Amino acid sequence: MIHETEFTIRTFHTDAFGHVNNSRYVELLEEARWRFAEDIGLIKLLGKRGMGFIIVDMRLRFRAPVHEGETIRVETSLVALGSASGDVKQTVYKSDESSVSVKSMYHFILIDRETAKSVPIKDEIRELLLKVIEEK
Amino acid sequence: MIHETEFTIRTFHTDAFGHVNNSRYVELLEEARWRFAEDIGLIKLLGKRGMGFIIVDMRLRFRAPVHEGETIRVETSLVALGSASGDVKQTVYKSDESSVSVKSMYHFILIDRETAKSVPIKDEIRELLLKVIEEK
Amino acid sequence: MIHETEFTIRTFHTDAFGHVNNSRYVELLEEARWRFAEDIGLIKLLGKRGMGFIIVDMRLRFRAPVHEGETIRVETSLVALGSASGDVKQTVYKSDESSVSVKSMYHFILIDRETAKSVPIKDEIRELLLKVIEEK
Amino acid sequence: MIHETEFTIRTFHTDAFGHVNNSRYVELLEEARWRFAEDIGLIKLLGKRGMGFIIVDMRLRFRAPVHEGETIRVETSLVALGSASGDVKQTVYKSDESSVSVKSMYHFILIDRETAKSVPIKDEIRELLLKVIEEK
Repeated sequence: MIHETEFTIRTFHTDAFGHVNNSRYVELLEEARWRFAEDIGLIKLLGKRGMGFIIVDMRLRFRAPVHEGETIRVETSLVALGSASGDVKQTVYKSDESSVSVKSMYHFILIDRETAKSVPIKDEIRELLLKVIEEK
Repeated sequence: MIHETEFTIRTFHTDAFGHVNNSRYVELLEEARWRFAEDIGLIKLLGKRGMGFIIVDMRLRFRAPVHEGETIRVETSLVALGSASGDVKQTVYKSDESSVSVKSMYHFILIDRETAKSVPIKDEIRELLLKVIEEK
Repeated sequence: MIHETEFTIRTFHTDAFGHVNNSRYVELLEEARWRFAEDIGLIKLLGKRGMGFIIVDMRLRFRAPVHEGETIRVETSLVALGSASGDVKQTVYKSDESSVSVKSMYHFILIDRETAKSVPIKDEIRELLLKVIEEK
Repeated sequence: MIHETEFTIRTFHTDAFGHVNNSRYVELLEEARWRFAEDIGLIKLLGKRGMGFIIVDMRLRFRAPVHEGETIRVETSLVALGSASGDVKQTVYKSDESSVSVKSMYHFILIDRETAKSVPIKDEIRELLLKVIEEK
């Protein structure tokens, strides 16, 4: 499953270079992952169990700048799942031209929010993720 | 006591208009209030007691834009203290010209961080604030 | 006309107090104003003429904290229009309880983006704003 | 040359997990790179020539969370320089324990800010960077 989200770039998303800054991209991509998680019913499952996913490694490659007024389409997909971690791939497209703006890969672990310790990804959470996993 | 902090405006503080955006100002002013609180020893007192100040009302007037590369000087002072609340005044000056960029007033209350409820400002915390209060 | 926008509060919108921070509110309210402007066709008009609205005064009153996982509904309306400035009122409601979280008022001016100078609000832009203005 | 900057983590830097969020780290690291560039005299050189460095690839590994009230020390160094690009390594240490919080690597290019096109790193800018480059 490849999840899609659109954002319109506002003046406040850009900097004096006229384009979206790195840290803004990280936020927009985080929002896209939340929508993905919400749409597949993951947020509810995590809430019930007091668990959360946190990012332990992220890599972003910036290919083409995005400017105020443009819309971007973010494709988000789960591309790998280990016993206690996984990988999410996110690609940002400029809506007008379908050219790639950003390629990124996020490595995450599951934690117990009470203890902040890593826990295995199992039971309902694992089943759900296996249903939506996409081949790399 | 009027506390002073300086910031250099970076590209990432500005937007495509070329100047510092509203929400960035709110953050820079918050950082200036933290430094004020730290410099007078307030952070330690609050930490010991599990208390924190939160803003319940804020008003900002933007007078002159600030651009990338400029430095700003923020003057922060406590100008009023009630039994459970107070007012902090913050003025932003453009360093080069000493002209005013932003005038602002923040109304705060003290809360117990465990219960998130308002509590009276008394004992050591009150004594400290009375020492640094500035006439409006 | 009262414009409505909804946001779901994510972990990254909140701070260690567990609730949405001031500067985040300012950003969410800005995004709501952009959607309002977009929905009434204002962004296109401004773009054509190289103009933009900037905030010169803002006041926010925080009434009830909003936490991770909650949704908020932002009501945005134009409540006053002068020859070169105007006022936008924004109220944030906690979706679950319909209680008010934030009340705010923004005073804006219109500028020519090339010169960064204030210009009168007239012609098509004025007509459009007069169509959507709401009594205070 | 290894450049050092310290930051104190405020409540507004953290999220409801109680620790510094990814996008905040990206901002704090950007501020550390600006201070590095400023301290070696690079900002002035770039300003004179209308040039700027932009990030085209970044990788961050999060090792240990950082909480409100902690101070962090960021070590920034230039570790590679090509004809039109280079690499900056940044490591975040928790000040109290000297344990590593974040490891990161940024790949940058030089652009002409007018045209937004990549340009070679040469003359004074190259000389300056060669003076401060650190072996990986």
